[in-house]
Amino acid sequence: MLLEAIYHRSNDCWAYGYNERSVHVRIRTKRADIDKINVLYGDKCKPWGDMKVKQMELLAYDELYDYWQAEVDPPYGRLAYCFLLTKGEEQIWFTEKGFDKTMPKEHLGCFEFPYLHPIDLQSPPDWAKNAIFYQIFPERFANGDKSNDPEGIHEWGDKPEYRNFFGGDLQGVIDHLDYLADLGITVIYFNPIFEAPANHKYDTQDYMKIDPHFGTKETLKELVRSCHERGIRVILDGVFNHSGATWPQFQDVVKKGPDSAYYNWFHIQEWPLQVVDGIPTYKTFAFEKTMPKLNTSNPEVRDYFLQVGRYWIEETDMDGWRLDVANETDHTFWREFSKAVKEVKPDAYILGEVWHDGMKFLQGDQFHGVMNYPVSNAILDFFVFQHEDAHSFVSKLGRYLARYPQQVNEASFNHLDTHDTVRLLTLCENDKAKMKLAVAFQFTFIGAPSIYYGDEIGLDGQFDPDNRKCMIWEKQNQDLDLLTFYKKCIKLRKDHPALISGAFRVQSAEKGSSLLVYERQEGEDHLIVAMNASSSSSLVTVSLPDGVWKEADMVEDGFVSDQNYEGEYKAELGPYRFHILYKN
Amino acid sequence: MLLEAIYHRSNDCWAYGYNERSVHVRIRTKRADIDKINVLYGDKCKPWGDMKVKQMELLAYDELYDYWQAEVDPPYGRLAYCFLLTKGEEQIWFTEKGFDKTMPKEHLGCFEFPYLHPIDLQSPPDWAKNAIFYQIFPERFANGDKSNDPEGIHEWGDKPEYRNFFGGDLQGVIDHLDYLADLGITVIYFNPIFEAPANHKYDTQDYMKIDPHFGTKETLKELVRSCHERGIRVILDGVFNHSGATWPQFQDVVKKGPDSAYYNWFHIQEWPLQVVDGIPTYKTFAFEKTMPKLNTSNPEVRDYFLQVGRYWIEETDMDGWRLDVANETDHTFWREFSKAVKEVKPDAYILGEVWHDGMKFLQGDQFHGVMNYPVSNAILDFFVFQHEDAHSFVSKLGRYLARYPQQVNEASFNHLDTHDTVRLLTLCENDKAKMKLAVAFQFTFIGAPSIYYGDEIGLDGQFDPDNRKCMIWEKQNQDLDLLTFYKKCIKLRKDHPALISGAFRVQSAEKGSSLLVYERQEGEDHLIVAMNASSSSSLVTVSLPDGVWKEADMVEDGFVSDQNYEGEYKAELGPYRFHILYKN
Repeated sequence: MLLEAIYHRSNDCWAYGYNERSVHVRIRTKRADIDKINVLYGDKCKPWGDMKVKQMELLAYDELYDYWQAEVDPPYGRLAYCFLLTKGEEQIWFTEKGFDKTMPKEHLGCFEFPYLHPIDLQSPPDWAKNAIFYQIFPERFANGDKSNDPEGIHEWGDKPEYRNFFGGDLQGVIDHLDYLADLGITVIYFNPIFEAPANHKYDTQDYMKIDPHFGTKETLKELVRSCHERGIRVILDGVFNHSGATWPQFQDVVKKGPDSAYYNWFHIQEWPLQVVDGIPTYKTFAFEKTMPKLNTSNPEVRDYFLQVGRYWIEETDMDGWRLDVANETDHTFWREFSKAVKEVKPDAYILGEVWHDGMKFLQGDQFHGVMNYPVSNAILDFFVFQHEDAHSFVSKLGRYLARYPQQVNEASFNHLDTHDTVRLLTLCENDKAKMKLAVAFQFTFIGAPSIYYGDEIGLDGQFDPDNRKCMIWEKQNQDLDLLTFYKKCIKLRKDHPALISGAFRVQSAEKGSSLLVYERQEGEDHLIVAMNASSSSSLVTVSLPDGVWKEADMVEDGFVSDQNYEGEYKAELGPYRFHILYKN
Repeated sequence: MLLEAIYHRSNDCWAYGYNERSVHVRIRTKRADIDKINVLYGDKCKPWGDMKVKQMELLAYDELYDYWQAEVDPPYGRLAYCFLLTKGEEQIWFTEKGFDKTMPKEHLGCFEFPYLHPIDLQSPPDWAKNAIFYQIFPERFANGDKSNDPEGIHEWGDKPEYRNFFGGDLQGVIDHLDYLADLGITVIYFNPIFEAPANHKYDTQDYMKIDPHFGTKETLKELVRSCHERGIRVILDGVFNHSGATWPQFQDVVKKGPDSAYYNWFHIQEWPLQVVDGIPTYKTFAFEKTMPKLNTSNPEVRDYFLQVGRYWIEETDMDGWRLDVANETDHTFWREFSKAVKEVKPDAYILGEVWHDGMKFLQGDQFHGVMNYPVSNAILDFFVFQHEDAHSFVSKLGRYLARYPQQVNEASFNHLDTHDTVRLLTLCENDKAKMKLAVAFQFTFIGAPSIYYGDEIGLDGQFDPDNRKCMIWEKQNQDLDLLTFYKKCIKLRKDHPALISGAFRVQSAEKGSSLLVYERQEGEDHLIVAMNASSSSSLVTVSLPDGVWKEADMVEDGFVSDQNYEGEYKAELGPYRFHILYKN
């Protein structure tokens, strides 16, 4: 038993409240080292003899480690626990005091999850894990109101440049809600819509006003109402790490210098405000002089943005915030923000832009989820770039699943591209089979999938500004095959609760292989997916658990028949093809 | 290189803001496995080539692991970093993506401490790490006002029982402040003083009123004022996990049942309120029916106790709270509580009663420190019970030092006994040499030492109620030798900044040995302590770093002379004796 590999601590992903009744306990051990782990658990105010035992399950694994999980219910709120690790004849107890060959005799010294308080739970709204997100870059989705167009707009469909405009607006979205409802999406995430000079609107000029080129508060209200009528929720992009340089508060500082009432709303390092050797004398987003960093620890600034956070929910009934550069803003502010938002809308969803490990933001007091770039990148590495084999891919996924609480993984925002990346189709070098394969994985993995507007009809594009092309609305120019495929993926996900909250179990992911077979299961609902992430065909053999299995109709992506399968399923998987089987 | 042993994550004790400029980064590796670790760090918005390198230092070790630390200053607030581990010819890079033989080429994928925000810092008040705490159980310290005595009090010095009273009060403390000032203590921690039936006052009846047997709000104000005049701070015991059964709000529930306006102030599981098979039908502290658990997630209850938290500071200018059963109360409440307290007194100290790993409470948003039972128990195990050797003792200390941020360790409340444990002298079976040895360690280790009233003049006692004997005030009955010793320990600590914030470095702690030699150093201030935790004499040899060394005068605890030492120091250490050397 390699004791050195073992890790557990009674916080973060290692011990957390999963719901009002249950605590999840996890432990890390060396890969394939330990045969069995039991958790001994109970209330520390009851006799030691009352401790119960539960066997842990292997939750995930990566190159180096196994990750085990057990769900335990502390009968009176208090939870003391320890582990019994077994390898062959060898048994070791693990408590907060360390490792011991003899069983502990008392609660003192055990690990403690001292009390399960519902108020402390990390609890994303239920709708988030069931969501199909659709990300809209408003300037490029649809021009529904010519009267609010900026001057000198380019013709719809022209080449996007850093500074050009096309007239997309909120009315355009309203006009196409039937399209979105028909597609099946359930949440729109809008890139910023508040008044700002740039076409991306990340340089906010007025947080309390819809950009006049996009519409008015009334338009947004109508949009949200129309969405809600169709069962679609709306989340907005909150840019509270920095403002735009034209924000009146910053302009006041530009004009009055240290005499400005707002100078402490920013982080002025040195007067005058200028850029020296590429570094502004005030803190900014990424040394970008037009994006002065906000001093969110100043109570005036904090109150201002808490007000913004509440205002748009109260005024328009929108459903949550995606928070830009959320990782560079202070935790104290986010705790207040989360509280303020939940006060006006208890089931709002709060999503942080955090590209790295986001655990510090996901303790129940700040965000419900973070944009899942690590998982996106792993998916792209395996299916699109073929940088690695199935074993390595699955190892990465295992590590990512193990590092967040289960409810965070389930409600996580899983995109394959965004306004900040190259378009998926372009990453796939226009190989639609490859793209469909990656999307099929996205829709059958843990976490809520997000579609970047237009991906579903074949929009392509390199990095910004090319990834922000105008949406194509002429049917003859849309890739309808792709659209059908997306609809099938969405329907599959909606039809199968196993895809939402079922376990992810790998059946096959060998070293050196591009074949991946995995299961998702939640009670009676059970699916098996076989994927071939390579340019050559491959024979796949899938063991089918008890019962009669059918193949899901994903068209074009595999041989589909009404045939029943039992015991075993064999198929020749073409290049970048996949088959999805479900228990009938 | 045993990769499996390695642990780092960019939170908790592994990456935290130490002060407004610096971030501490730590990593765990297998004990004695790695030769050298460098941190590569810098701003993610600068070119990759601008990354700087800093070599990590070995912070501590335990049986299985080495713990390394580096202090790095992110030049613009943002910090991306990764590790380069070296063992002989072998070099491995470690990023958030895992291990790699080749150097990363970009910030993306590195670990990130995304932004160092002063407002998020875990920052105990400066005075806490310099504190010498003195814990007073008010009913037993001194009776300064006969007019407020409870009926039927026992004669001062009689045997304490669960339910008897002796008349101790706040005036008694005021009367003896010169004694405490002369002793040298700088903070009094009072067990509860609010109105309550029991002699320990943990069953609060009125949170807004000083127990009439202890005095009035005016008495407390005078006490705090008198303390402050002498440079002594005062912290009070806040019992907010549960109330007493006689608290009017609970009595209202008892009387009116579900019709009570307060029924949601508690956790009623089932009506009627009763005890079934030893378990009350309402949640309580430890199934104790007289201590109903408070529903601190109810906003009315929360606001009430935030008010209590502010009130006593505002009214009396007292300096902080020790929070009873703090681990079973919700984090959401503690965050609000911490904020409320800091609003009325920015340099207040907040200390939680948490016996286990307290990391979840020590993130900067809740407590400054927890009662350091793990370290207390390690000290007792080694010096008092001799359950283990120096190697094992030092291993435990290493583990405990590594698991909290440095500022938490420095400002931690390090006691050897409390009202909840057997008295130190009794644990030592009245062996004063042993007791002095443990105390000498307590005063020369990292963390602020606390003296439980009377320990310093030889008070003994088994578990509650025996550990709550009346303080002895007749000089002829006080152990003046012990008193002198405590004064010397306090003076030593005050004279040597190295004991407050210096590194703790072990010079010798062999397996099977009871000899312990360690250094504390902060700049020019440098001490070396040699201790013999056994009943037989032992020869100790200490290597003295450059310079001239003298021996600290601790009297009776070793041979003391005016001699100068250089290069090496040899001495015969008697049973339970210690020598302290300092650079002259």
